[in-house]
Amino acid sequence: MNVSSTSQNFPRKVVMVGAGRVASHLAPALHAHGVAFAQIYSRTLSSANQLAQRIGAEAVDSIDAICSNADCYLVSLTDEALLQLTPRLTKGREEALWVHTAGSVPMQLFAGYAHQFGVLYPMQTFSKGVAVDFTQVSLFVEASSPVALQQLKQLASLLTTHIHEADSQQRKSLHVAAVISCNFVNHCYALAQRWLEQQGLPFEAMLPLIDETARKVHQLKPTEAQTGPAIRGDQQVIQSHLKLLASSPQLQQLYRTLSESIATLREE
Amino acid sequence: MNVSSTSQNFPRKVVMVGAGRVASHLAPALHAHGVAFAQIYSRTLSSANQLAQRIGAEAVDSIDAICSNADCYLVSLTDEALLQLTPRLTKGREEALWVHTAGSVPMQLFAGYAHQFGVLYPMQTFSKGVAVDFTQVSLFVEASSPVALQQLKQLASLLTTHIHEADSQQRKSLHVAAVISCNFVNHCYALAQRWLEQQGLPFEAMLPLIDETARKVHQLKPTEAQTGPAIRGDQQVIQSHLKLLASSPQLQQLYRTLSESIATLREE
Repeated sequence: MNVSSTSQNFPRKVVMVGAGRVASHLAPALHAHGVAFAQIYSRTLSSANQLAQRIGAEAVDSIDAICSNADCYLVSLTDEALLQLTPRLTKGREEALWVHTAGSVPMQLFAGYAHQFGVLYPMQTFSKGVAVDFTQVSLFVEASSPVALQQLKQLASLLTTHIHEADSQQRKSLHVAAVISCNFVNHCYALAQRWLEQQGLPFEAMLPLIDETARKVHQLKPTEAQTGPAIRGDQQVIQSHLKLLASSPQLQQLYRTLSESIATLREE
Repeated sequence: MNVSSTSQNFPRKVVMVGAGRVASHLAPALHAHGVAFAQIYSRTLSSANQLAQRIGAEAVDSIDAICSNADCYLVSLTDEALLQLTPRLTKGREEALWVHTAGSVPMQLFAGYAHQFGVLYPMQTFSKGVAVDFTQVSLFVEASSPVALQQLKQLASLLTTHIHEADSQQRKSLHVAAVISCNFVNHCYALAQRWLEQQGLPFEAMLPLIDETARKVHQLKPTEAQTGPAIRGDQQVIQSHLKLLASSPQLQQLYRTLSESIATLREE
């Protein structure tokens, strides 16, 4: 097989398996760069329909209805569904390139079920109704063969120049870091929002601070950028905040835990 | 006393008490807008010198050497030093406007020690060597009288249009929210940095994700912007991450605690 001639025509026909947040951002972004989606599969037809209509694809809610002649199947499902459905999804479609987008599922999930496979993991947070600029997203790729890797990189390069190879173990470590840097961070925002709402104060007051906190770690390492009472060891402030938080015992406990964690990291 | 004529000349002569991070950002920013600093006081002469040289002021490390004819004393010390030093600082200087910048110290700290006093609390994070654009900073002010409030707002308006009044209780609640939105958030960044370093992976891979996470809460409430395994209830991912984190027991415990907290907030 001639890799470059193959890759020039790749992918001619793609099926998106999944219509959740990742799929709903990824498929339209690829479609905007000329990728033809034949079908969108979702267990919920209305979800499949919603996405399919945006990119001129057919919506299907049955695995049997998924065509068998696509040259690439992009799978963005929950990890549980991905593990559960892979045997049925790939059956009769083994010749195509199978790609999943999950951070913490090993590529080898597809081994024995497909001949060519890989992973395309976008390091980003996707929310409904919030557009994502893929040119700013890092894509981590892994593939079962040089041919599959080339095809995958070709697909990825439609979206961004930030393409990095990472094996399944590295990708999982990156996913853990992403949960900490994004999901836990947003949870802190949410806790602040709830707390301020309870006090009749506007969350918007935090936005310049939030922006600066994010901006600063482009210049300084986070361990060097740490500010606040816990890193200063300012027990006066910490104790007075804990007292104020007595009405919100869960938040109070989290304040204590995170302040201790800041102090511990400082001493390491 | 004619308030407007007083305020037009205010402040003619300012002393900065403190030379830490807040003072080192605040004094030069005010100086750049024409505020004359007579002196910088710090218990450490070298710190006082460093800041004083930038703004053409005299450096002093003794409270007795602080001049008594300034019309405004700006105090940016740790909470402990602020509480401890206020009686000595104000003695013989009772006629001036006394202003501290602490989030969690009540304005009434100055009651009985000065005639006119207030608080100017900048809702921002200040790191050494990282410039702060004060036009984007919210300043929360509180004062002991209408005259003091007008003077304080006049001073604040040199830096930003985002000036809000907040009493000591509200300011403390805002400070707690700032610790959560900024200090705890940066700690999450730091935990991700440490984790990635241990895995030989670059923290820089997180930056687009960090930026997007911060950007998103300008559009969505944080409680609506939450993504990740904990909000999805994806136990498969959570358990696999906890297993991977077994080598970092403290981080593992924090991952568990924050995931539980996300799940709890979702159910509320």
